[in-house]
Amino acid sequence: MQFLRATLAAGLLLAGLALPAAAQSSTAKTDSLNIRKLYDEALLRGQSYENLRYLTGQIGGRLSGSPQAEQAVQWGKQVMEKMGLDRVYLQEVMVPHWERGAKEKAEAKPGKGKPVSFNVCALGGSVGGKLKAQVVEVQSLPELRALPAEQVKGKIVFFNRPMNPTYIETGRAYGEAGDQRRSGAAEAAKRGAIGALVRSLSLAHDDFPHTGTMRYEDGVTRVPAAALSTNGADQLSALLKANPTLTFELEMSCRELPDVKSYNVVGEIKGSKYPNEIITVGGHLDSWDLAQGAHDDGTGCVQSMEVLRLLKATGLRPERTVRAVLFMNEENGNRGGLKYAELAKAAGEQHLAAMESDGGGFTPRGFGIEGPAATVRQLQQWQPLFQPYGSGEIAPGHGGTDIGPLKDQAKVLIGYECDSQRYFDIHHTAADTFDKVNRRELELGNASMAALVYLLSKYGL
Amino acid sequence: MQFLRATLAAGLLLAGLALPAAAQSSTAKTDSLNIRKLYDEALLRGQSYENLRYLTGQIGGRLSGSPQAEQAVQWGKQVMEKMGLDRVYLQEVMVPHWERGAKEKAEAKPGKGKPVSFNVCALGGSVGGKLKAQVVEVQSLPELRALPAEQVKGKIVFFNRPMNPTYIETGRAYGEAGDQRRSGAAEAAKRGAIGALVRSLSLAHDDFPHTGTMRYEDGVTRVPAAALSTNGADQLSALLKANPTLTFELEMSCRELPDVKSYNVVGEIKGSKYPNEIITVGGHLDSWDLAQGAHDDGTGCVQSMEVLRLLKATGLRPERTVRAVLFMNEENGNRGGLKYAELAKAAGEQHLAAMESDGGGFTPRGFGIEGPAATVRQLQQWQPLFQPYGSGEIAPGHGGTDIGPLKDQAKVLIGYECDSQRYFDIHHTAADTFDKVNRRELELGNASMAALVYLLSKYGL
Repeated sequence: MQFLRATLAAGLLLAGLALPAAAQSSTAKTDSLNIRKLYDEALLRGQSYENLRYLTGQIGGRLSGSPQAEQAVQWGKQVMEKMGLDRVYLQEVMVPHWERGAKEKAEAKPGKGKPVSFNVCALGGSVGGKLKAQVVEVQSLPELRALPAEQVKGKIVFFNRPMNPTYIETGRAYGEAGDQRRSGAAEAAKRGAIGALVRSLSLAHDDFPHTGTMRYEDGVTRVPAAALSTNGADQLSALLKANPTLTFELEMSCRELPDVKSYNVVGEIKGSKYPNEIITVGGHLDSWDLAQGAHDDGTGCVQSMEVLRLLKATGLRPERTVRAVLFMNEENGNRGGLKYAELAKAAGEQHLAAMESDGGGFTPRGFGIEGPAATVRQLQQWQPLFQPYGSGEIAPGHGGTDIGPLKDQAKVLIGYECDSQRYFDIHHTAADTFDKVNRRELELGNASMAALVYLLSKYGL
Repeated sequence: MQFLRATLAAGLLLAGLALPAAAQSSTAKTDSLNIRKLYDEALLRGQSYENLRYLTGQIGGRLSGSPQAEQAVQWGKQVMEKMGLDRVYLQEVMVPHWERGAKEKAEAKPGKGKPVSFNVCALGGSVGGKLKAQVVEVQSLPELRALPAEQVKGKIVFFNRPMNPTYIETGRAYGEAGDQRRSGAAEAAKRGAIGALVRSLSLAHDDFPHTGTMRYEDGVTRVPAAALSTNGADQLSALLKANPTLTFELEMSCRELPDVKSYNVVGEIKGSKYPNEIITVGGHLDSWDLAQGAHDDGTGCVQSMEVLRLLKATGLRPERTVRAVLFMNEENGNRGGLKYAELAKAAGEQHLAAMESDGGGFTPRGFGIEGPAATVRQLQQWQPLFQPYGSGEIAPGHGGTDIGPLKDQAKVLIGYECDSQRYFDIHHTAADTFDKVNRRELELGNASMAALVYLLSKYGL
């Protein structure tokens, strides 16, 4: 690209920045200028990217119950203490403690052919074990249920339904394909299988296995469950076509340990006019153990803290109380989210709104609103203030796992929404690393979130 | 991120896919279904990503006049010939032939300190040479013009104004900072300087120097001009603060050679009803030489060809003639764009529309329309058809460099617009490589472009 296009586009953009008629009151003009201040501060002096560099690089993966999760708690507390907030504190919460262990090994042995090794990873919560059995491939839970018992008994069930690439919103494909990972092992065990292999929930074609939480059922044998990469799943499927009776060996040393004491980290700016009305903005501090947990959900944590910093640095003291919360244990239990709501209820706190960032730190698109239709319409009136920044898509949607338990206590739950195309390529894998995060995309998200918090704190609901 | 959010979002998305009232006629329904077909084909069986893999990996950087540019011409022709189009042909065009050569070396020598090496690259079109001189740093052309002559004479002028990070649309920042690269050397030479160094046009902080075209002026001495990386520029600026009289040595072996014969590559599907009305969709086949030219503009080329393939594969034969054009020499001369318009005019061709993709292959956002206000409004009526795909931002904008010369011959020029945040990080550098392109983002763009071409070919203007 040369200059002509860019230069002309610049002029048109300037023209486009003029506020639409609906927003031309002097209040709207003040809001527009204040939001511009938040963006300028985020883009010129943002600290979230360097915070994320530390969290991902110096602490790294931080599964609930791990020493790294504990380090992350202390780090989050220190970062917010240095910001000079009105209050920074921890909320104690007991969390599950599952460990992957050192051994994850898988190999297919076709009749006469050479053994073929596979990259695998245990699904979160799986029991360990050592298996050797034939494999039966299915595309879905209903297909498994329809199979004659003798075709499943004593075997490993291989769930190989891909995420649907034709959905534009990748989260929809993730949600639909997820039953295999979530319930596959239990459903397989009910039919006498001794283990489960699951195609990774990814739209990329690569060699990274994706972990993620799975559930056993009471009264059903707990059998080991592992993910294959998408390439690995394709390869195993091809081997099975050529040799349906091949044997598959799986060995994993993962295990569940007793619950561990951990914490949510909370930082707060007291509201200048209505201190008892609370706006919570959060992400989750825990991550899976395979990588640095950069997009899931380091970005949500540094963004939430940055919202407070932006409000302070721009002098836009909120009229209502604003809290950044780094929730513990979203990935495998949501104990932090449940505890936060429980304590808020016990203290009789009034939550105006809760916002979560847990879809990655990509270019912002808007917000998903989980609340009454009238509230959605009220928030949509602010669209013109967000459109010049490309984040004006305000529509009914879902808040987030951590803030979900606040549903009956908050007037509205809000999910920060950013570009979803790359997220599931790296989600829950060794590839979810700091270098995948673009500084500007992250910073634009920070400012979008801060702008909505600013408006909520000024106008209420 | 766990499942709850994704699953709920999926349901809401489904609801959101219902067409708005304005688009509920049966024609609109047909259009909606046909556009869905284009997306499905793009996402399920797209070929653009593999085409790009070949162009970037097997051919690589392809500056006008280079053997690789010639290979790219033959490759483009073969790809389109295999698609079974109605017509594939080359348009001969003479292009500049500038070569970087083997040597690019730069070193600062502070008084007593150790020499400091810098990554540099010649700006496209620069003369070579070997310089050793003091450096004078300026932030702008006006600042240079205001300096006393003796402060510039015999020195190297160092233009160090960064791109403005507070602009949301990165192209605007690129356009504004670009005068240094474009005109810096000539302006410096007018004041007696012997060379120019320019801060790279990038919003990233890294060690990649960014090349790009620059212009000399008739009657003004042609002095060598090189780019420093953004980190390098910061480092040189700091060195100059500590030691304003340091000497800088620059040696470059670049040179201009005689013009070379090259080609635009054109593929065509004849319109079923109005074959004489033409819709052109294109990107530029040439790239800078430092890397693979993946986002600039390999993506635009494979997208343009894919538009034709999508129309064929879905059976949506266009009523008007649709052409994919791989333009030669956008980067340093635009000779291909000029030749295409010249030949179209000479043949009396009627251009309904010309569309260009030259802003990278990132997630689509919409289209910039360069044409009469009534045409903008007409195209905006189609927004509801694009909104479910996230590419409904249809607004006044700029078409593109290659299609610019068609301005007076086409009813409208259209720039395909995608997320702009990452583009200038890699633009014109060694980092513009295939791995930076996300398959889905590219494919979503292909379908967006094909959808607009489909509508234009059906309804005209």
